[in-house]
Amino acid sequence: MRVVRVVGYHQNLKLEEAPEPEITSPLDVIVKIGAAGVCRTDIHILEGQWEDKANVKLPYTIGHENAGWVHAKGDGVTNVEVGDKVILHPLVTCGLCRACRFGDDVHCENSTFPGINVDGGYAEYLKTGARSVIKLDPSLEPSDVAALADAGLTAYHAVAKAARKLRPGNFCVIIGAGGLGHIGIQVMKAISGATLVVIDRNEAALKLAKDLGADHVVLGKEDGSFVKEVMDLTGGKGAEAIIDFVAEGGSTSTGVKMIRRAGDYYIVGYGENINVPTIDIISTEINFIGNLVGSYNDLAELMILAAQGKVKLHTSIYKLEDFQKAIDDLSAGKVRGRAILVP
Amino acid sequence: MRVVRVVGYHQNLKLEEAPEPEITSPLDVIVKIGAAGVCRTDIHILEGQWEDKANVKLPYTIGHENAGWVHAKGDGVTNVEVGDKVILHPLVTCGLCRACRFGDDVHCENSTFPGINVDGGYAEYLKTGARSVIKLDPSLEPSDVAALADAGLTAYHAVAKAARKLRPGNFCVIIGAGGLGHIGIQVMKAISGATLVVIDRNEAALKLAKDLGADHVVLGKEDGSFVKEVMDLTGGKGAEAIIDFVAEGGSTSTGVKMIRRAGDYYIVGYGENINVPTIDIISTEINFIGNLVGSYNDLAELMILAAQGKVKLHTSIYKLEDFQKAIDDLSAGKVRGRAILVP
Amino acid sequence: MRVVRVVGYHQNLKLEEAPEPEITSPLDVIVKIGAAGVCRTDIHILEGQWEDKANVKLPYTIGHENAGWVHAKGDGVTNVEVGDKVILHPLVTCGLCRACRFGDDVHCENSTFPGINVDGGYAEYLKTGARSVIKLDPSLEPSDVAALADAGLTAYHAVAKAARKLRPGNFCVIIGAGGLGHIGIQVMKAISGATLVVIDRNEAALKLAKDLGADHVVLGKEDGSFVKEVMDLTGGKGAEAIIDFVAEGGSTSTGVKMIRRAGDYYIVGYGENINVPTIDIISTEINFIGNLVGSYNDLAELMILAAQGKVKLHTSIYKLEDFQKAIDDLSAGKVRGRAILVP
Amino acid sequence: MRVVRVVGYHQNLKLEEAPEPEITSPLDVIVKIGAAGVCRTDIHILEGQWEDKANVKLPYTIGHENAGWVHAKGDGVTNVEVGDKVILHPLVTCGLCRACRFGDDVHCENSTFPGINVDGGYAEYLKTGARSVIKLDPSLEPSDVAALADAGLTAYHAVAKAARKLRPGNFCVIIGAGGLGHIGIQVMKAISGATLVVIDRNEAALKLAKDLGADHVVLGKEDGSFVKEVMDLTGGKGAEAIIDFVAEGGSTSTGVKMIRRAGDYYIVGYGENINVPTIDIISTEINFIGNLVGSYNDLAELMILAAQGKVKLHTSIYKLEDFQKAIDDLSAGKVRGRAILVP
Repeated sequence: MRVVRVVGYHQNLKLEEAPEPEITSPLDVIVKIGAAGVCRTDIHILEGQWEDKANVKLPYTIGHENAGWVHAKGDGVTNVEVGDKVILHPLVTCGLCRACRFGDDVHCENSTFPGINVDGGYAEYLKTGARSVIKLDPSLEPSDVAALADAGLTAYHAVAKAARKLRPGNFCVIIGAGGLGHIGIQVMKAISGATLVVIDRNEAALKLAKDLGADHVVLGKEDGSFVKEVMDLTGGKGAEAIIDFVAEGGSTSTGVKMIRRAGDYYIVGYGENINVPTIDIISTEINFIGNLVGSYNDLAELMILAAQGKVKLHTSIYKLEDFQKAIDDLSAGKVRGRAILVP
Repeated sequence: MRVVRVVGYHQNLKLEEAPEPEITSPLDVIVKIGAAGVCRTDIHILEGQWEDKANVKLPYTIGHENAGWVHAKGDGVTNVEVGDKVILHPLVTCGLCRACRFGDDVHCENSTFPGINVDGGYAEYLKTGARSVIKLDPSLEPSDVAALADAGLTAYHAVAKAARKLRPGNFCVIIGAGGLGHIGIQVMKAISGATLVVIDRNEAALKLAKDLGADHVVLGKEDGSFVKEVMDLTGGKGAEAIIDFVAEGGSTSTGVKMIRRAGDYYIVGYGENINVPTIDIISTEINFIGNLVGSYNDLAELMILAAQGKVKLHTSIYKLEDFQKAIDDLSAGKVRGRAILVP
Repeated sequence: MRVVRVVGYHQNLKLEEAPEPEITSPLDVIVKIGAAGVCRTDIHILEGQWEDKANVKLPYTIGHENAGWVHAKGDGVTNVEVGDKVILHPLVTCGLCRACRFGDDVHCENSTFPGINVDGGYAEYLKTGARSVIKLDPSLEPSDVAALADAGLTAYHAVAKAARKLRPGNFCVIIGAGGLGHIGIQVMKAISGATLVVIDRNEAALKLAKDLGADHVVLGKEDGSFVKEVMDLTGGKGAEAIIDFVAEGGSTSTGVKMIRRAGDYYIVGYGENINVPTIDIISTEINFIGNLVGSYNDLAELMILAAQGKVKLHTSIYKLEDFQKAIDDLSAGKVRGRAILVP
Repeated sequence: MRVVRVVGYHQNLKLEEAPEPEITSPLDVIVKIGAAGVCRTDIHILEGQWEDKANVKLPYTIGHENAGWVHAKGDGVTNVEVGDKVILHPLVTCGLCRACRFGDDVHCENSTFPGINVDGGYAEYLKTGARSVIKLDPSLEPSDVAALADAGLTAYHAVAKAARKLRPGNFCVIIGAGGLGHIGIQVMKAISGATLVVIDRNEAALKLAKDLGADHVVLGKEDGSFVKEVMDLTGGKGAEAIIDFVAEGGSTSTGVKMIRRAGDYYIVGYGENINVPTIDIISTEINFIGNLVGSYNDLAELMILAAQGKVKLHTSIYKLEDFQKAIDDLSAGKVRGRAILVP
């Protein structure tokens, strides 16, 4: 089968032939890829940023946002049938450790991450496990939802966590209305009565945010004037929740100025340090909440919102063999919505 | 009446005569002071650290850990009678703002703080409000519990918050077995089945921790070897909860190395900055939880544990007029337990 | 002033002259009534159903769903000014008991209930307390919202409690789309992503439910066929939450057949007994959750949804002196929406 | 191997020879039985009470409280090794349904229940699954803990659920200090600071309750005078939580009289109906909470409390071939603690 592989860091990806994956364990599932999202993390992998963490042997196939159809399955697989249309939770988890048994499968003690540390989905077929496949609603196609498998799932996870504490009249500030943020906006409006303020440096992103239901949008000017705008919107008290999809370039140090006493600062993006005096944390009793990708159940819930039409993703489709163009377009900021590879 | 006042920053306190407080509002309560705790914050006030924050006009009476007997009360006070033995919640709160109405009275939008920004309890009488007085169990005396009103309450608040999430087999690490920490240890053992590890730089503090029920004690050596000890105790996974009563001198940067994936870091002490890469926060999905002093209901619960003999405080009694000696002993680290002034 | 009073049970109400209420306590607030809701409970009072429970001395003024303008206030009232447009939480609470201090003011140990056990709002003026008044958004008028003060608040309280546990894809069944139910539907859609099924015996009520956003409506036929319809909608598993606004005429015994394993049955209406074998409760691990009127904070949140246009009430306005016609219309089922008296 | 089988309802069990179970699926685990608890449910099975529910084909081997050593395992089993000392969660669950994936494995949509609907543990060997085995601490033996696998686990589950809501000063009433109740008492004392009141009709059971840490014990006289005793203990307000391990013979109708406003009634036992007017449920806003056996994670936590010596079980050991004597002794009320069969 055709696969797109990392053959070396600081080099381009390469289209190669490789044998199809085979069932070797009773819970294995082999998926015929229908669509694979192209993610900024894929560029970071090529830049070598993940070399030490992933510890993967080259060459290997990248692609960690995958959807398609069940092609083959092991003896122990009872939850899908061959031919089922599925989206893949990004991790393959054990189901036996305490974290898996609490539904926190993201913290599984024995997981693999196809596309990061084992072969991923820039390919015709991919091997995953029974615990990672979610049947799609008939109304959804793999290319519609593949990019929700990781980016969308991360946004869903953080926003749903925040929404559980928010009540009508509470303010939630979303920092960053890009790839994750624009999913987050749709999720927050779908599951919560909170008042949503969206900050972005890009006017077009703010226009989209408004169209997607943001109650207020604020331009994130360099001069930091947005802090005062948010404080004014919140009666000088700040927001009960800040969800920071950026967390670099000074985002957290201005973000923390907009938080209400006893409020929660959800960190989703990464890049810079949180660097805050403990006296400020304790005297206002604020919290910083870390957020990783969501669980399998989170992804199942996000697929329901997608099937209900409450969450939509803008996509640009590329053929698998046009992977380089997709990567180049993403690097150049030329992709409208999310780039998707279709084999 | 006799009062001990701040007459200037970087000067000693001064014993003076002042008029007794009077009822001027229907919810006022005047308490005859039975005991006032001497707190390190009192020394910080004299050093001028609170000058900008408190914005109090000198001279004023300090002392924010108070207990005694109801001496007089306004027309609207229905919850105590003259003569009742009471401990005082440190804040005087409005009862009408949204925070007060949720039980988060510590975040009252219209509060005063006797001993910090209005006259406090190094005196014969103090004026507080109906919403700040808690009747004491007959078995408890003001001098037994006064220091629980702020220091103990802060420890209770953080530990009870942590305990609500901890289950048998979970590990909780308490950093610092001093004034707050030794209360925290007793509270954690009284209300939770978690396994408690206590770290302190002082061998005597560790001995006390062990006597109070800590499951494991670890010496907080300068070489940071305690991190490995805690990791070994927790099977290499770290603790579900860290409660940091120190948060200065590098405590948080070593503390964060002992936290388990998806764990919570409770900040109670203050002094240094939390300075952590966001990539570390999101990739392990850890949380930093701020903790201020507890609510009125928290203090009521702590008084129940005290009445049940589950929480005990070591105290050293001084006469009110010996305030300088109490301050000096505290500065010199010579106080056994907490110093208490009795008028 | 003019008041409408209960002068005896099993007799009609009577319009009389009475002295205006006066400020006698520092937290008193006197409200010029702008609108008073006419509730089925008012009819039950006249029928003597509340005689033993309310223990009120006749004659007294009824009316427990009130809104208007602040006319006078005691010395201790800091949260409203004379002239403010306000809605009244139905209880007057102490603010000092443990329940009040946790925000559960509905369980206040020292409350009164104007219109039930002290003089209410079928009048020109009513005396309440500082803890019971909520300023209205400029866009809302007393006659728009008065009936939300009790009926709407009860619906909000139950629905918000249920919504906190519901996730996308979960099913919520609302039984009864009448006075409370039609508010409940709007609230559920405003704050949750759950799938909402509404059951009513009345086709017109179902049409309204659909217009208000119900995802599915099911006719509550006498033959009980709606149980199968709901089971089919839920894939044979039942709903995660049932909110029963009826709870009489066999509602609970059929309702319980539609609940999923580990689901919650919220009881809001009343009339019949819950009568369920404990073996059925434990083997499916279901819960029955009682619901009273909401708290002050609940009412504040509901007023925000009303100001945002997310919750609307249909009303029929009557002059105060036409109280008998309002009562008669309500008894005869002729009121469209809620009947409102305007002095 | 030797097995003790149900060969017909209303007949005695019979000791027979049967083939050893074999690995047929990759997640199978075969356990050499070290101990099997004899439970009142076993008697109910023989009486035919479970005939319709279990739908099991006779003959089959009973015994649903099992512990022992791993004898063989399938290819997919990674969490235990042959020779490991284990306790068995009573259900064999799929790990793939939504309930399993949330940690609510008790509500698994595809489970079996060895000893109830497939072959159980009155035998030399038993087949279970990887998801049902928990390694025991070296200090614990199968015969010490087998009876915790179902009876103890049920008590733990209900008590831990209640404890999560209870605070110091709150009252918890446990009704019934027998097989489940005496475990519940130990658990509540180990993980909570609530004040525990225990009611039983048997003086010896109350003595044991007191020894195990109950704060108050009350004799459950036929005249119902215990209701007043509990109300007096709770200042006339009732208990925040009632945990009813009996739920027959009128237990719930008297139990509900002892509950505080907004309190929770945990149903664990079964036999009678809950029959309560909805007006009483809504006017006091009480809840009835169903409780089934606990999850795998619950059992892991209970094993930790057992290893820590915080939960101890009294047992009477019988040889497997003396099964009839164990059953007879249990029927006659002659077993001290729990009867345990050892092959």
